[in-house]
Amino acid sequence: MTVTKWNVRAGAYYDSVVLMQLQRGLLGLSGVIDAGVVMATQANRDLLAANNLLPDSISANPDDLLIVVKADAEDSATEAIGKVDELLARRKSSTLSQDFRPRSLSAAVKQLPEANWVLISVPGRYAAGVAREALELGKHVFLYSDNVSLEDEISLKKTAREKGLLVMGPDCGTAIINGVGLGFANRVRRGAIGVVGASGTGTQAVTSHIHELGGGISHAIGTGGRDLKSDVGAITAHQSLDLLARDPETKVIALISKPPSPNVATGLISAAQETGKPVVIYFIGYPPPARKIGNIRFAISLSEAAEIAVGGLEDSRIENSPILNSRFVRGLFSGGTLAYETLLGLQAFLSPIYSNSPISDSQILPDPLHSVAHTIIDLGDEFFMVGRLHPMIDNDLRIRRMKQEAADPEVGMILFDVVLGEGSHMNPAGELAPVIKELGEKRIGELEFVAMVIGTDDDPQNIQSQLDQLKDAGVTVFRTATEAVEYISLRFGSGEKNEFAPVNLEQLKQPLAAINVGLESFYDSLISQGVQAVHVEWRPPAGGNERLASLLAKMKK
Amino acid sequence: MTVTKWNVRAGAYYDSVVLMQLQRGLLGLSGVIDAGVVMATQANRDLLAANNLLPDSISANPDDLLIVVKADAEDSATEAIGKVDELLARRKSSTLSQDFRPRSLSAAVKQLPEANWVLISVPGRYAAGVAREALELGKHVFLYSDNVSLEDEISLKKTAREKGLLVMGPDCGTAIINGVGLGFANRVRRGAIGVVGASGTGTQAVTSHIHELGGGISHAIGTGGRDLKSDVGAITAHQSLDLLARDPETKVIALISKPPSPNVATGLISAAQETGKPVVIYFIGYPPPARKIGNIRFAISLSEAAEIAVGGLEDSRIENSPILNSRFVRGLFSGGTLAYETLLGLQAFLSPIYSNSPISDSQILPDPLHSVAHTIIDLGDEFFMVGRLHPMIDNDLRIRRMKQEAADPEVGMILFDVVLGEGSHMNPAGELAPVIKELGEKRIGELEFVAMVIGTDDDPQNIQSQLDQLKDAGVTVFRTATEAVEYISLRFGSGEKNEFAPVNLEQLKQPLAAINVGLESFYDSLISQGVQAVHVEWRPPAGGNERLASLLAKMKK
Repeated sequence: MTVTKWNVRAGAYYDSVVLMQLQRGLLGLSGVIDAGVVMATQANRDLLAANNLLPDSISANPDDLLIVVKADAEDSATEAIGKVDELLARRKSSTLSQDFRPRSLSAAVKQLPEANWVLISVPGRYAAGVAREALELGKHVFLYSDNVSLEDEISLKKTAREKGLLVMGPDCGTAIINGVGLGFANRVRRGAIGVVGASGTGTQAVTSHIHELGGGISHAIGTGGRDLKSDVGAITAHQSLDLLARDPETKVIALISKPPSPNVATGLISAAQETGKPVVIYFIGYPPPARKIGNIRFAISLSEAAEIAVGGLEDSRIENSPILNSRFVRGLFSGGTLAYETLLGLQAFLSPIYSNSPISDSQILPDPLHSVAHTIIDLGDEFFMVGRLHPMIDNDLRIRRMKQEAADPEVGMILFDVVLGEGSHMNPAGELAPVIKELGEKRIGELEFVAMVIGTDDDPQNIQSQLDQLKDAGVTVFRTATEAVEYISLRFGSGEKNEFAPVNLEQLKQPLAAINVGLESFYDSLISQGVQAVHVEWRPPAGGNERLASLLAKMKK
Repeated sequence: MTVTKWNVRAGAYYDSVVLMQLQRGLLGLSGVIDAGVVMATQANRDLLAANNLLPDSISANPDDLLIVVKADAEDSATEAIGKVDELLARRKSSTLSQDFRPRSLSAAVKQLPEANWVLISVPGRYAAGVAREALELGKHVFLYSDNVSLEDEISLKKTAREKGLLVMGPDCGTAIINGVGLGFANRVRRGAIGVVGASGTGTQAVTSHIHELGGGISHAIGTGGRDLKSDVGAITAHQSLDLLARDPETKVIALISKPPSPNVATGLISAAQETGKPVVIYFIGYPPPARKIGNIRFAISLSEAAEIAVGGLEDSRIENSPILNSRFVRGLFSGGTLAYETLLGLQAFLSPIYSNSPISDSQILPDPLHSVAHTIIDLGDEFFMVGRLHPMIDNDLRIRRMKQEAADPEVGMILFDVVLGEGSHMNPAGELAPVIKELGEKRIGELEFVAMVIGTDDDPQNIQSQLDQLKDAGVTVFRTATEAVEYISLRFGSGEKNEFAPVNLEQLKQPLAAINVGLESFYDSLISQGVQAVHVEWRPPAGGNERLASLLAKMKK
């Protein structure tokens, strides 16, 4: 027979290391079979229940500390609960001692003025306040804490950007700055690969694998997982790309994230193009538009991202590709799949882009008869096809649409496919080329024509004659969608320049010194890496008592 | 000044070649500036309007034929409209004549009994009826027509599957059977690569590129774009994979489609594994789970699919991988990105799969505390983290969950990550291995443990010791998510065997003979390829008059 006893402590703050140590202490007592020490949130209560550690009659608030002991006898359980205070007092201190522990960030800065970083791992509801203070003190922030609101994240990052400071996080697990690992970080050799990571273990996996392959890391900058959502707009990722682009030690950049919002993805890819350095991009779960476009390589796994980054050092001299066409592209396709694959590729580079055969809902073209911004039209869609021959047989619909698009002064490129073979028109170029020539001559220097020609040298149309007729009319011709997408993506660009105060590169290269607020293990790790660091003996305002804290705040005013 | 005149012809049937020829005829008349000949659907009226060819006062039904002429003078316009009947009568006949033109499919079959295929390109609302008749006559169907209902597609394909026949389509643009192109098809050399294509121009692009690279095609089987939706369940694609697996001439298979429904994708990938031949899969826009898993290679573009298929001939001997584990896998991750990348890979092979960090809504795990089927859990998710140390520091949560999963007799594999480095637990394997050993011994031969260990040889934990401790406890250990996903995908399988009447391979290899119902150009193309073919002088029931057709149908009963 087992006996379960418990103890509820209302609204006091305990850090999570203390709770783990208390639980372990209880488990080490004689007669104790199992123990749980948790903040009494619903999730944690459910977890206790799953472990048969939640008696029915417990009532506790989410802010309360809940201590449960299951023992082999009444006495053992009672005795264990009685030892809670003693165990809490016995909590193990940091392995590396620090003579004087400041109790505030400002005091810590006085103790270590050269500290350029503040590591914050206090509970989420207090984290933004500490981060704000750090920014005011002119420090970069490594914000490990989660459960920080989106509003706080945006406001912190905007402040940081104005000051030329970085806010990595919230929920940033890892970074390697100037050879020093922050938070969770693998020990890797220094080298020429800079990493921008919106995902913690993603960055760890990539940096570890780079090390294993013989490569090294210049800096690995974390952004926090939400940085690439459109609300935040990848503020930290953009700052980081800019920083690594300016850093002469960084020869290759790897950018790792869960799939960003589409407009954020386009902006980041454009920024990556503008670094002029080889950039490996792995947006996990985002279909890669190509293997390689200009200076950008797209990976499909963490390990591949590392492999490309290490291999990519070889062709590291890449010029910035100037934006040559600031108008819109209009794709007029007879082949639905070719339209779809082209959209898939171009959506990484052109935004906004619309289609009557969209990949995501945000790309839906309201009226298939009128293009908007960048547009890819499948003219073989059922909408157009009632009682009409397929555009691979009858060019009339496409020629009319070409004229319509060419008359729009915002259009800078008309893209189309020519699909040869059995069943298709016997001389599509013969009908298209004269029209293109005429349209092109009306807008010389303003309007380009690009075609992808699908066919073989055995096709009945004579492919060479088709290619020649198109080229003679001034069309840039490709044989695959992939090549056309690469060409187009290098001709267009977002045109938007990020204007912000650059992060000071020289300061970043100085020996890292840091102030740690929160988990002591992160302080220990800094010290073991030979870093100058100060740990703040942080306690929440009014010891975590919300009502008292609110009173204190009012008194300060 | 221009004059626009028009003519509306109610409810009669005209095929789209006739309409195109009429329009061209009108445009060739003196004084005519522009002309439109369309069925009066809203889309077509909008198209006329976009070309300034839709006078306000026209009233017409979608079934009506609308003829509009814009001329330089009243007389020219009137004269042009007056010539419509003459132009309709003058319609150009097929380039290759056929002495006797049967008016029904059954009559055509009597004329060419060896015909094993029926090509159907009549308007959508009549197409299912013709296809049904073809199946009843024991013929394979190439169904070019679009605007066929989903219900009709499902019913036709189920009937075909029972009879061991193929229905390619509806909206199937292309196929190459036994060296003969059907519909739109490029002329390519024969060879060892079989293609299953749910996208027409996708198949054309891939087959053309294969030809260009020096490869050749055994058969290219079209399925129609909707085949891979879950309602249809990829009936034709499954039949095709089975057929190409049995075909000794086919050494490599390429499978091309827009992204299938998730469960359909899993089923097809599983079927592809079971072919035992190298299969290149390109699901356009579907993030590839890996470059290569067993006999499957994942491409990210049409051109790459072709390149891999041509290159893939070299390692064409691959054994069927037997399914070794028919239970469920449960992934217990400390790293969110590792969980996400693993889910991204495994979702291609395991279905259904759930997660508290899902990629699609259908993967949402209702209760993070209880796994269902295949499940991937991110234990570092905020849900678990209130007042608790990260699972990279504290193994308690994971060990409890491991015990919970191991007690479930449906679980055959527990997968987990171990992330080393600064900040992490100093000996995670030391805590995990003994538990794993104990759990494994309770269910020998039933429960596997698989780990991915992220770290470097410079990390403070001593990675070799971590690997050794895990291996000693019986854990299969990998260093990347990619390798773990490959291993797991080969250990598990859908277990579902498709049971259907196989398509007769010997019959498919006989010289292709066909009956064409619809576009004459497809008949011309067959003849020009030296194929025995008969064109049916098809007219809709009651000349397209719906009311009369319905009366006739009632009289037949």
